Amino acid sequence: MNFSSKLLEDAVNEFSKLPGVGQKTALRLVLHLLNKEQEEVNQFGNTLIKLKQEIKNCSICYNISDHTICEICTSHKRDKETICVVEDTRDVMAIENTGQYFGVYHVLGGLISPMDGIGPADLYIDGLVQRVSTGDIKEVILALSPNMEGDTTLFYLFKRLKEFNVPITTIARGIAFGGELEYTDEITLGRSIITRVPYENAMMR
Amino acid sequence: MNFSSKLLEDAVNEFSKLPGVGQKTALRLVLHLLNKEQEEVNQFGNTLIKLKQEIKNCSICYNISDHTICEICTSHKRDKETICVVEDTRDVMAIENTGQYFGVYHVLGGLISPMDGIGPADLYIDGLVQRVSTGDIKEVILALSPNMEGDTTLFYLFKRLKEFNVPITTIARGIAFGGELEYTDEITLGRSIITRVPYENAMMR
Repeated sequence: MNFSSKLLEDAVNEFSKLPGVGQKTALRLVLHLLNKEQEEVNQFGNTLIKLKQEIKNCSICYNISDHTICEICTSHKRDKETICVVEDTRDVMAIENTGQYFGVYHVLGGLISPMDGIGPADLYIDGLVQRVSTGDIKEVILALSPNMEGDTTLFYLFKRLKEFNVPITTIARGIAFGGELEYTDEITLGRSIITRVPYENAMMR
Repeated sequence: MNFSSKLLEDAVNEFSKLPGVGQKTALRLVLHLLNKEQEEVNQFGNTLIKLKQEIKNCSICYNISDHTICEICTSHKRDKETICVVEDTRDVMAIENTGQYFGVYHVLGGLISPMDGIGPADLYIDGLVQRVSTGDIKEVILALSPNMEGDTTLFYLFKRLKEFNVPITTIARGIAFGGELEYTDEITLGRSIITRVPYENAMMR
């Protein structure tokens, strides 16, 4: 691109570093910001800088938090004996939105992915083992995405956690609500037959 | 959405003010920035703030520029007697990329759009009239988007400029290169027959 201004070019380059943002989209976003008042642009920039400076990971579950211990871990309403293990804070938000889970979480901060050079030591796995090893935990639910990295991580976590004799479960895989049986891939469909559940349990509460 | 952190929520809200960015995309972008070093996040925020603080509009053509007069208006290689009138700086970049235009520009900063409350007084039209009125201009090319706002602005500019007896042209409308004749709408196709050009002129140089 042929920029008329170095300042403009710098700003467009910063935006196009973001995932899924190309140069044309970046230019559109920057020109949108340019039409705003100075105060609004300052707020945009400073909010991001402040976020990075002040945000913490909860020292128990490693979820993103404003405080040393997050709201879920401090809440008296949550069942502290059930831990749901997830990849990142987006998964915590997704599960919270269902309104079906009342235990606490453990955020791994990623999945094991040798292709990307991410090994077990890069994730908050030791913290999880530590929590389970206290003996206060009654169930560990592994809620990871059903892909290669998720399965690898699942296998590794199972190996690390089995010595504590705590029940380890995974979230059910099967046909999504609204999905069409005939368009479901054979692995999912086959697995959903093997892990079939009694009719009464299958209905949404 | 159910945020675990006020800081995170603020940052996501700032991003989702941008055009075409919803809450889910905003969250993805913010989490991407969170994984970066503090220095990179500072650079992102400060580049935007600096852009808004220091950017200028060229005092001749109103294009976005780092200086009081832009590079195109100061260049000795450009034909100062031909003005190409465009909506915004993106159009200047698009025309510069063609490598087919060697005159100067005039950026209106928008199009007349009564629906959005944008009238002629909100655009840099007086500056254009001023430039044409000096008598140094040999041609004004109106290069506006072929939509209702573009046509309204075209009509208004023509009325304001015709008293100076300067040739006023518009860029050709017709079938795009690579377009299919049978799928072209009837208005474009009809117009492209009326404004047909001699074969020798139609070939790309």
